[in-house]
Amino acid sequence: MNKLWGNYPELTEELLQVKQIIKKNIRSREKYLQEAISPMIDSGGKMLRPAFVLLAGRFGKYDPKRMRQLAAAIEMLHVATLVHDDILDDSKFRRGIETVQYRYGKEYAVYIGDFLFCQCFCMLSEYEYTMESLKKISKSISSICLGEIRQYHFRYIKDINFRNYLRIISGKTAALFAISFFAGAKEGKCSDKICNLLTKVGYHMGIAFQIIDDILDYNGDMDTLGKSVQSDLKKGYYTLPLIYALEADRENRISNILEKPVLTEEDIAEVGRLVHAYGGCKKAGQMAARYTQKAFSYIERLPENGSKKIIRETASRLLERDY
Amino acid sequence: MNKLWGNYPELTEELLQVKQIIKKNIRSREKYLQEAISPMIDSGGKMLRPAFVLLAGRFGKYDPKRMRQLAAAIEMLHVATLVHDDILDDSKFRRGIETVQYRYGKEYAVYIGDFLFCQCFCMLSEYEYTMESLKKISKSISSICLGEIRQYHFRYIKDINFRNYLRIISGKTAALFAISFFAGAKEGKCSDKICNLLTKVGYHMGIAFQIIDDILDYNGDMDTLGKSVQSDLKKGYYTLPLIYALEADRENRISNILEKPVLTEEDIAEVGRLVHAYGGCKKAGQMAARYTQKAFSYIERLPENGSKKIIRETASRLLERDY
Repeated sequence: MNKLWGNYPELTEELLQVKQIIKKNIRSREKYLQEAISPMIDSGGKMLRPAFVLLAGRFGKYDPKRMRQLAAAIEMLHVATLVHDDILDDSKFRRGIETVQYRYGKEYAVYIGDFLFCQCFCMLSEYEYTMESLKKISKSISSICLGEIRQYHFRYIKDINFRNYLRIISGKTAALFAISFFAGAKEGKCSDKICNLLTKVGYHMGIAFQIIDDILDYNGDMDTLGKSVQSDLKKGYYTLPLIYALEADRENRISNILEKPVLTEEDIAEVGRLVHAYGGCKKAGQMAARYTQKAFSYIERLPENGSKKIIRETASRLLERDY
Repeated sequence: MNKLWGNYPELTEELLQVKQIIKKNIRSREKYLQEAISPMIDSGGKMLRPAFVLLAGRFGKYDPKRMRQLAAAIEMLHVATLVHDDILDDSKFRRGIETVQYRYGKEYAVYIGDFLFCQCFCMLSEYEYTMESLKKISKSISSICLGEIRQYHFRYIKDINFRNYLRIISGKTAALFAISFFAGAKEGKCSDKICNLLTKVGYHMGIAFQIIDDILDYNGDMDTLGKSVQSDLKKGYYTLPLIYALEADRENRISNILEKPVLTEEDIAEVGRLVHAYGGCKKAGQMAARYTQKAFSYIERLPENGSKKIIRETASRLLERDY
């Protein structure tokens, strides 16, 4: 399990069980299907979203079986979006293993993503979660799609500002973080007040998380930087560090590079250097800290319990992470 | 509205309203999204699935508002699968208009399909349909994905037999026909017996429908034949007329052509001729008739009413159609 949860053995144990539930639900008579999906589940990401479901659930009445099923369904949804994202990004690797689209082709990947989407809804309907949760979960996925569509729409637009960037990542990342907290709380029959607070915690953590992800892309050594930023820049995805650097760059040094019809590796390295030189990463880091602070302020208003402590520590860790 | 429903003004009127509901649900702040989807809805296919929902619903307690919303959700699901199918098939046109993938690119098309999937679930949760319906709908979509994955898996396999072909189209087409009837009946609070009968009607009509679709591909003049069969053969999709012809062709004349690394237009025309010569279309047509007969036998066990009459006539028409 991811090092993020190393200090919480109970949560780690539950997340392992969530993984088992996911694996049970991708079993199919079609062996090749299982073979395509399993490695992704095994390689394991941070399991943030299912952890959020479980942590939020602990603020209410906790039925472990139902809560884990819900957590598994939400992680499955996340994996579905990753499979489809990899098609668009033409990614070869994720979590250190070959992506479905690279290994089996984009065709397979479209349907494997769809299959995971459906299995998620099958799992949700099996346990008869509240319609309110189902509705919000569906809406969140719509938001994620809209976020991705927006991101695609804003490619190569150099004056995409913070507001548009925020709209993109609100859908892409924050919506699923928020729904994870909400669904856990709702399933735990928490009061509307607690449900709302936890949703806001998730939303603000999600924004901070995505900004940091985007900063980390600019942070590795030049080699790593090459790989991740290269692909984003070539595809015209301009993230917050670059957006801030573009605003500060009155001589249009970055703009002039980006306008080239083809970007060489040297061009991209230069953009990376300029983004740092114009303080793009620093300023983006401040914005991430602001959103984390905002998340803290909502966390503080939650009733005291062990779960609250873990959420607070996780928000801190995610802000300071370098992975 | 499609000529299929020309004799039923009341149903036609309801289907038009279903279309309006769909259009309302694809409205979005993102104008480009609506622009991408609207033409597909306007061009209109046969609207078979929503019609089945409404027709099945009439066997029970009919709440027009809820029933139309359900019908709209199911058609949306169908449109979502079409958008994703077109990515795999690399189709330029559907229903006479440019496909989303051709017009906006495969990237957009992945997310637009996903968005439609989600909106379908949003619509279903809005009206709080029964969990049993939701569960079955989710399962059907999983079946559809599995059908497509199977179809992809069986490409270029010349000894794919009727059984495997049946498994593919059971998922691809029959599952959604069946769930359309089931969901309508369930929403109308029909007895389990009626729900089951209608599900079986849908399943058998679905199989017959898909076989006929596959026969029609081999039927047009050589020019039309070229286009549709060409693309299927090149991609290695072998449908029932070809499967039967391959079985009858002891001299392996068809096999020898299919084994060529590249198929010319002349090769494909020759395959078309041979499929007819070996009686592939005729035998497939008999199989379609058998499934239609089976559907009739279930229809006959339904209580008498106007809806039953329309279902019977539609099953007949679909068997005899040339479009």
